[in-house]
Order: sequence, then C-alpha cells, then structure tokens
Amino acid sequence: MSDHHVYKKLELVGSSRTSIEDAIENALATASESVQHMDWFEVVETRGHIVDGKVAHYQVCLKVGFRISGS
Amino acid sequence: MSDHHVYKKLELVGSSRTSIEDAIENALATASESVQHMDWFEVVETRGHIVDGKVAHYQVCLKVGFRISGS
Amino acid sequence: MSDHHVYKKLELVGSSRTSIEDAIENALATASESVQHMDWFEVVETRGHIVDGKVAHYQVCLKVGFRISGS
Amino acid sequence: MSDHHVYKKLELVGSSRTSIEDAIENALATASESVQHMDWFEVVETRGHIVDGKVAHYQVCLKVGFRISGS
Amino acid sequence: MSDHHVYKKLELVGSSRTSIEDAIENALATASESVQHMDWFEVVETRGHIVDGKVAHYQVCLKVGFRISGS
Amino acid sequence: MSDHHVYKKLELVGSSRTSIEDAIENALATASESVQHMDWFEVVETRGHIVDGKVAHYQVCLKVGFRISGS
Amino acid sequence: MSDHHVYKKLELVGSSRTSIEDAIENALATASESVQHMDWFEVVETRGHIVDGKVAHYQVCLKVGFRISGS
Amino acid sequence: MSDHHVYKKLELVGSSRTSIEDAIENALATASESVQHMDWFEVVETRGHIVDGKVAHYQVCLKVGFRISGS
Amino acid sequence: MSDHHVYKKLELVGSSRTSIEDAIENALATASESVQHMDWFEVVETRGHIVDGKVAHYQVCLKVGFRISGS
Amino acid sequence: MSDHHVYKKLELVGSSRTSIEDAIENALATASESVQHMDWFEVVETRGHIVDGKVAHYQVCLKVGFRISGS
Amino acid sequence: MSDHHVYKKLELVGSSRTSIEDAIENALATASESVQHMDWFEVVETRGHIVDGKVAHYQVCLKVGFRISGS
Amino acid sequence: MSDHHVYKKLELVGSSRTSIEDAIENALATASESVQHMDWFEVVETRGHIVDGKVAHYQVCLKVGFRISGS
Repeated sequence: MSDHHVYKKLELVGSSRTSIEDAIENALATASESVQHMDWFEVVETRGHIVDGKVAHYQVCLKVGFRISGS
Repeated sequence: MSDHHVYKKLELVGSSRTSIEDAIENALATASESVQHMDWFEVVETRGHIVDGKVAHYQVCLKVGFRISGS
Repeated sequence: MSDHHVYKKLELVGSSRTSIEDAIENALATASESVQHMDWFEVVETRGHIVDGKVAHYQVCLKVGFRISGS
Repeated sequence: MSDHHVYKKLELVGSSRTSIEDAIENALATASESVQHMDWFEVVETRGHIVDGKVAHYQVCLKVGFRISGS
Repeated sequence: MSDHHVYKKLELVGSSRTSIEDAIENALATASESVQHMDWFEVVETRGHIVDGKVAHYQVCLKVGFRISGS
Repeated sequence: MSDHHVYKKLELVGSSRTSIEDAIENALATASESVQHMDWFEVVETRGHIVDGKVAHYQVCLKVGFRISGS
Repeated sequence: MSDHHVYKKLELVGSSRTSIEDAIENALATASESVQHMDWFEVVETRGHIVDGKVAHYQVCLKVGFRISGS
Repeated sequence: MSDHHVYKKLELVGSSRTSIEDAIENALATASESVQHMDWFEVVETRGHIVDGKVAHYQVCLKVGFRISGS
Repeated sequence: MSDHHVYKKLELVGSSRTSIEDAIENALATASESVQHMDWFEVVETRGHIVDGKVAHYQVCLKVGFRISGS
Repeated sequence: MSDHHVYKKLELVGSSRTSIEDAIENALATASESVQHMDWFEVVETRGHIVDGKVAHYQVCLKVGFRISGS
Repeated sequence: MSDHHVYKKLELVGSSRTSIEDAIENALATASESVQHMDWFEVVETRGHIVDGKVAHYQVCLKVGFRISGS
Repeated sequence: MSDHHVYKKLELVGSSRTSIEDAIENALATASESVQHMDWFEVVETRGHIVDGKVAHYQVCLKVGFRISGS
C-alpha cells in the first residue's frame, strides 16, 4: 500500500469582490480549516453576480483534490 | 471575511416512482437530515429503471450547493 | 428566398414553484408578449433554489427558436 | 458466459402534450411492442414544439438499455 | 405572476489589454447602457490576441442574465 | 474606451436546399438586414430535414458575433 | 395514441470522394432501402481519410430520426 | 456505389468480472452472433458494480461500427 | 420512504503501478474503510505519471455511488 | 514492434473563400509540405469571417493523424 | 495561395505563482522563443497546485494558434 | 524564470493487440525516442479495430505533457 496514493475530490464555490484568483484563495482558505493534505485544484466554472452593471462578486466553482491514503 | 461566501457541492441521486420533481424532492429531503444551509441544486442527469415496459423509478442525479462560510 | 427559412434563438430562464413543465410555460408566456412565430424550444439546464430543504423554485434554462424570414 | 450480461441501447424520441414524464412513457410503450428485457433509460435531450406561445408537444430523446445476452 | 421570474440571457465578448476581470467589466459596462436588471454572468470562453509574443487583448465570452418579468 | 471592443453574439439557424455553405449565407443575409458590424460566425450544429430519403433542407445553427462598442 | 409520435434514431456513417453533403446523401440513400418515414438527420462528426496529402474520402457520422408510431 | 461505404453504429454494454478489455470482448462476441462486417469500436463509458468494496462487474459502453453498403 | 432510495456520489482518484483496473480497486479499497453500501462507480478520467518514458502510475478518477437512504 | 502503429495528431486551421471542403484541402496541402504519412483528419470546429454580411473566409479547425512508427 | 492562411495550434501549460494572466504570459514567452507568427490563444483549462492551503502555482492550459502559410 | 515551468502537450495514438495499458506504453515508447522530460499523460479516447468479431487492435488516443522550460 506504500506504492500508491488515493485522493478524494471536493467541489467548492468561492467568491470574492475583487478577482478570480481571490475567489479561489477564499475557497481554499475555508476548506483548509477542515481538510488536510490538499494537493491541487481544477477550475470548473467562473461566474458572478452583477449589481448596478458591475461585478459584485466573482464566483468560482473548483474541485479540490486531497490525499486520503498513502504517504 | 464577512463580505464573501464559500459553498460546497454534494452530488446526490434521488429516485421516485411518480415524477422527476418528486425524485428531486426525495434527494433533498434525505440530504436535509444532515446538511444545513442548502441553497440551490443543478440537475446533472435524468434516468430510470424500466419494469414491464414502464418507468419503475425515475432517478435524478443532482448537485446541491450549501453555504459553509460567510453569513 | 421563398424556399428557405431563417430562425433566431433566444436563451431564457423560466421559474416556477410547482414543476419543470410550468417553468417552461412561464418562460414561453413572457417571451410571447414580444416575440412572434416561436416554433420550438430546447431545455439547456434545469436547476432551482432550495428553502428549508425543499424546492422553492424550479429554474429551467431553455433556448427558443422563432422564424425571422421565410413564410 | 453465464456470469456476465450484454446490453444494447436504442435511441428514441417520445412526445406528449402533457408532460416530460408522459413523453418518456409513450416512448417506452411503443418500444415495448417490439423490444424485450428493457432495463433502464437515460434522458439525452428535452425539447418541444411551440404553438401560440404554449408548449404543444414535449419531445424527450432517451436511450433505452435492454439485455441481449445472459440471464 | 408575482411569484416567479423570467430571465433572458445575452452572449457578449468583452476585451481588455490588462486582465480577464477587466474584460468582463468592459462587457458589462457596454451592456448596461441598453440593458436593465442585469443579475448574473457566466464565463463561457477565455481567449485573446497575441502580438510580439505577448497578450495584446484578453477576450472573454460571457453570458449575462437579466430579469424580463416578475418584480 | 478606444482601446477595446465589445461584441454581442446572436444564435441563428439558416436553411438551404443545396448545401451547408448556402444555409450559412442565407442566415447571414437575413441577419444583415437588421444587424451591422457582423464580424465572425461559429457553426454550432448541422442538421436537416429528409423527404423521400433525400436531404430536403440543410439546417445550420450558427452564432454570429458583431461589434457593439469600440471603433 | 393519435395525438403523439414516437421516433427512433439510427447512427450512420456515410462517405464520399467529393463533399460533405454527398457523404450525407450516400448515408441516407443506403438507409432508405430498409428504413421508412425518415424525417431528420443530425451531423455528429465529420472526418475523412487522407491519401497523398489530399482528402480521399469524407466520412460524416450522422443520426437519422424516423417515425415508428403515430400518423 | 463501389467507390464509397456506408456504416451503421450500434451502442452496446458489455460486462466482465475480470477486466475492461474482457468486457469489450464479451460485447463483441455477443454482437457478432447477429451482426456481420463489424469494423471498429469506440469506448463511450466505463463503469461497474461494486460488491463488498470490490469491483463485481466492469461495464463498458461502446459503439460498434459495421459496414452496411459498399464492398 | 420504503419505496425509493437516495444515493450520494464521491469523487476519488486511485493510482496503481500496474493497470487501470488495479487503480480502480485501490480507490475502492480505501473508500470502503469509511463508506458503506457502495453500489457502483463511473470512470471520469484516466491519466498517469511518466518516468523515464514509461508509465510510473496510472491515475483513474472515478465517481462512486453509495446508498444513504432506503433499504 | 512490427505489429502495432503509433500516430501523432496535429491541430490545424485551414481557410478558404469558397467552401468548407476547400478549407480542409488547403490545410492538408500546407501540412503535406512538411509532414509525411498523413492518414486521417477530424473536423473540430467550423467558423469564418464575415465581410459586408457575407462569408469572407471559411475557417475549419481540424486534427490530422499521421503515422510516426510501424510500417 | 495568396488569398488564404493556414494556422497550426500548439497546446501549452504555463504556470505562475501570482495569477492566471501571468501563467498565460509565461507560456507565451517560452513559446515565442521558437515559434513565430503567434496570433491567438484559447484557454483550455485552469488548475493549480496547493501548498499549505494556498495556491502555490496557477497552471493554465492554452492552445496557441500561429500562421504557417499565407502572408 | 526559475520559479515556474512551461509544458507542451503532444497528442498521440498508440495501438496494441493485447491491452489498453500496452497501447499507452507503446505510444510513450515511440514518443520517448524524440521527446525528453515527458511528465504525464491523459487518455482522450479509447477505440479499436475489429476482425472476425474480436478486438484486433486497441487504439488509445492520449495527450502527453513534457517540460520545455524551467528546471
């Protein structure tokens, strides 16, 4: 069992008033409170809310992979 | 951190003998026993089992988004 | 020019408290106030809002094709 | 050969004046006249015809799986 | 009719010399001159022109949803 | 605002008895009666009607991009 | 049963030395020898063989819908 | 007619207790009992049943192309 | 509630030095330590690492469905 | 090594003022100046530029497979 | 040959510690060392590595089109 | 430049008489003769030729990523 890893993927949506990158970091910061060994993310969808003709929040849906077995 | 939300998505499959809408409600009813702050769903796939040439169960795969951070 | 048609497609989102079919009809009813010669629709996405663990609104995104040339 | 099954999939389009579920049942009812051992269906596409700004027919494209080998 | 909304989606391409976010804002700024009640956007595609081996313009294709019925 | 452009995309379906290219040209000819600054098209879907085992009409769904801001 | 139709879809690949349209017609001509009531087609994929740096055959994969119930 | 071919595609699901390749071979073996001139296959989906935390059956959905015209 | 089931889907990535099937089994073995009633899997993506021009690890991303309600 | 082939795929965009087929031939003609053993192509995307409401150039993106090993 | 262009597309993955835009620029800077006439890019996938619950590197997969014929 | 990498992706098709894994290894073995620093692969498509109702060759299309900048 020492020669292979198993990972689990979570699907999260982070938001930010300022940028796509900040929305990703916000999602990771919240996830890291309860999930260990986070290893990679994949952006699934980028969207956002509009208020008064401007972006109010970017919303980035991402999958996060973290190791659950192997070391 | 008060100006943004983070959401998590679950993927569920609900089933029903009667309708697509009922299969969605059944999935949500079960999920709501253990998940709080459910906010939206997205239908991913609609399928079903056939018995004697008729629909025996509708099976609806859906993603459910719920808030895990921000208020 | 009499032997061919040209169509335009609109993308709409209808909503309903009761069913997917009703959300489609609501979108068509609103569109028909300003669009003539609507001919077909295609469901693009089905989703909805959740309140208290139950479907509050079905939201159906659909494309609607209507004739703009030819008779 | 007794320990495995082989299935074939048909692609059908059923229609109905009343609902998506009824269009599915209509497709299955017709298919069951000539196909045995139908086991499951998958909805591929949902669309319809519009007359006078209302749904005239729902048209549901579905794949139907039925067993052709194994018992 | 007061208990449901109908939305329409526009498909736009915004461009910017500086960033993806700025291309989105540029598209929304132009759209807001003629469209009211814009509510959300979805990024469909991100691309751009290259001049002298550098990004000359980011081009972001997005869908914009705005309310056309319900209040 | 002079250093960037904003485009809008329309979705059209053109038809022709003779060829895919002619269906595209027919859609553009009709659109050009009311739309200015059309710049590019993308074929989304190619289909058609069959009569007596032959193609009666090619139907080509295309998106058309046209400039709405910038010069 | 007189108020609805059921269709079946076949998936075919036609080929031609000359054009995409001719490959479609060749597929329909062969199918029409054994299938009645063919109503529409959808192009699924366009590809071909290359010989000496030129197109030797266009190969067009298409789905053909034909009525199996209702009149 | 001697200078072009027409092919038809079937969609099958084969299963096997041992491997993905064996599931493909099982589907082809059953299809070959009634279909001639099978020429190629394309894997569409790979899935399976789980019993006691182990793969009980691999299930491979594949399309099979076979020649119906031309020699 | 006895006449319908609700399932949840997990997304996992299993790896193996030897084969795609072994990577699937490794993912299921790890998941079965904490998840009960696993019923089916769907392969989402197959990839791997390369070392010295050879496959070092197959990595198979799969979704696993397990029953959370109904008996 | 004599019992198997390895192919490489290139992605090209050909253009033509006259037709989709001509754009494909133009891409192949240019590629054949530097690539040998080209065997097949797959159309990935069809688009074009519009000038004065007419197609100025068809642009066809295609993948071209050519043999790099085996004889 | 003077009235049409042929382009080739490369697929690249650029990375950056700071932003998605910077990862794109890094990929283009490296490609421009050996490729001339680069004209446009298309973002195919956005992902990244996570270290200590934060984005360590953004990784952006993009296709780059460059002219290989016509002037 | 020392803090980021740039990768290029090749698209290959490997074949094998025996298994999907062997087709992948065959593609990598051929690519490794001319490409250095190959790091990962992604399976894009699995298909094959059929002779006498059995798999004659598995054909696996894969993308291979290799480092072209950074160390």
